Amino acid sequence: VWSEVMARIMYTAGIRKKDRFQNAFGYGLFTGAHGFEKGAQKIGALVIPTSSGNTLRQLQLMKDFETTALGCTPSYAAYMAEVAEKEGYDIEKDFKLKVAMCGAEAWSDEMKRKIEEKWGISTFDNYGLTEIIGPGVSVECEEHDGLHINVDHFYVEVIDPKTGEVLEPGEKGELVFTTLTKEAFPSIRFRTKDLSILIEDECSCGRTLPRHVRLLGRADDMMKVRGVIVFPKQIEEAIMKVEGTSENYQIIKYKSGVMTQLKVKVEPDPGFKGDKNDLAKRIQDQIYGILNLKVGVEIVNIGDIPRSTGKAKRVIEE
Amino acid sequence: VWSEVMARIMYTAGIRKKDRFQNAFGYGLFTGAHGFEKGAQKIGALVIPTSSGNTLRQLQLMKDFETTALGCTPSYAAYMAEVAEKEGYDIEKDFKLKVAMCGAEAWSDEMKRKIEEKWGISTFDNYGLTEIIGPGVSVECEEHDGLHINVDHFYVEVIDPKTGEVLEPGEKGELVFTTLTKEAFPSIRFRTKDLSILIEDECSCGRTLPRHVRLLGRADDMMKVRGVIVFPKQIEEAIMKVEGTSENYQIIKYKSGVMTQLKVKVEPDPGFKGDKNDLAKRIQDQIYGILNLKVGVEIVNIGDIPRSTGKAKRVIEE
Repeated sequence: VWSEVMARIMYTAGIRKKDRFQNAFGYGLFTGAHGFEKGAQKIGALVIPTSSGNTLRQLQLMKDFETTALGCTPSYAAYMAEVAEKEGYDIEKDFKLKVAMCGAEAWSDEMKRKIEEKWGISTFDNYGLTEIIGPGVSVECEEHDGLHINVDHFYVEVIDPKTGEVLEPGEKGELVFTTLTKEAFPSIRFRTKDLSILIEDECSCGRTLPRHVRLLGRADDMMKVRGVIVFPKQIEEAIMKVEGTSENYQIIKYKSGVMTQLKVKVEPDPGFKGDKNDLAKRIQDQIYGILNLKVGVEIVNIGDIPRSTGKAKRVIEE
Repeated sequence: VWSEVMARIMYTAGIRKKDRFQNAFGYGLFTGAHGFEKGAQKIGALVIPTSSGNTLRQLQLMKDFETTALGCTPSYAAYMAEVAEKEGYDIEKDFKLKVAMCGAEAWSDEMKRKIEEKWGISTFDNYGLTEIIGPGVSVECEEHDGLHINVDHFYVEVIDPKTGEVLEPGEKGELVFTTLTKEAFPSIRFRTKDLSILIEDECSCGRTLPRHVRLLGRADDMMKVRGVIVFPKQIEEAIMKVEGTSENYQIIKYKSGVMTQLKVKVEPDPGFKGDKNDLAKRIQDQIYGILNLKVGVEIVNIGDIPRSTGKAKRVIEE
């Protein structure tokens, strides 16, 4: 089923047998890379399994293999263009890239336009989630007017996140999926917390699969950082595992260039006598152990984190 | 062919359908992880695609999923045991590990014994190389007396590395392979530079596939560091790409715990006026760009690297 739906969404994005698909999603426990590999192989395209990171090498391989299609998070596609410019590549002459399939993160229309302009390519948003199958649930077509949902495999509903009531096409609510063909680990009415709208009209591309609009946000406090799902609670859990920390901490979400990054400020326990750098390192290791994400940790003085008489504001955007 | 030979070597190492195989080889362009994934899936075992790195998480997953078989480089298997002890795991009670399939690096018999003792498991050496197929060429059986070669797929010869003459079983020389069944990219008499000996006697395990002894070294200056193939020439190439470097450099191979590591010392060009940390960082980035390996770089004073009147000794073992 996965190869089938992945091949379908990649074909919709224009990927064919002659294409060379650079798979810059992170291989490992993250579903993205494995799904795109299966889809590209089913189409018969060449897969260049670069995994994430090492941007200099990504660009060198992209040039040497004449990569025509790229799969990665949107922030990484933008970052790669930045590095390519800095390294003196002539993007138009040095690369043969035509298409990028981005996903695994929320990305604005501005971000999408920026990636398309910098690379001179089309980008295709796609949607999916580990609990349902990974990528492969829906994808943009060449009209770029919403994402076609593979409803023969995933039954879709949009509900009011508060009441649970099923909404009509055109109404904004939470996407809910039921798997129709998946074996061993089916999901029934899985609530995604992702907000979107179903589109009623037929698409001018001719495909009859129904569509939803690009994601409009979340109904909870989940963040995506470099393709990794982060709940503030997981960071709290990591901090609390380390001896010498207090319950006063703050998560700061900020932009470094186009990449969304996190850093964490933690007050030590009043009785803490040890080395602050060592404490920061241990917190960082614990966060990495849980999230597989390197997050900067700063140990601040006691009293530096604003106290709250109600619900503490744990996540700050800078 | 690859799934077939991988399933065969993994079955030889005792891996069955009910096993849970933690695939801690690095996914990406490195062949190891992809091959072991295909083999385990053909057997029907569960694959936990952790990829390399993040040892805390590897151990947590190994415990939670009750991993029974592990695939990784030998140095990483040893390192994981060290970290497990440090983190307070009770190796016998917390883990269900039975088997480790290690490869992609030369490892001594002492290292093998150490891994087996620390984990309380059996280890199975396996051999393969990217130019032939990746892993899947040969593997130890339960007798642990040499590696059975899949000669129905890979025709083997042992030659004198100097004269090219084909040697007899029992004589030490360079392994040479010809692929018999591989399509699209066959190899004919590929010289591996790996030194070994063919074994004439039949194995008491009953398998009739011929064997070779565990690798006895290299006929060239190739090194393996954390599973990555490194030729000194590649490091030289990276250094020379960076403006401000001289032709005086040295590669130091050292042990950090059980892991083999590299660092590089470079003299700046006499005319170099910039920041040394910045120069070191640029060299490090170039090496990473070529090798996908983080290597420490130190900028030393002019004259610090011993000069040679003959062949410069570029690689030092500490």
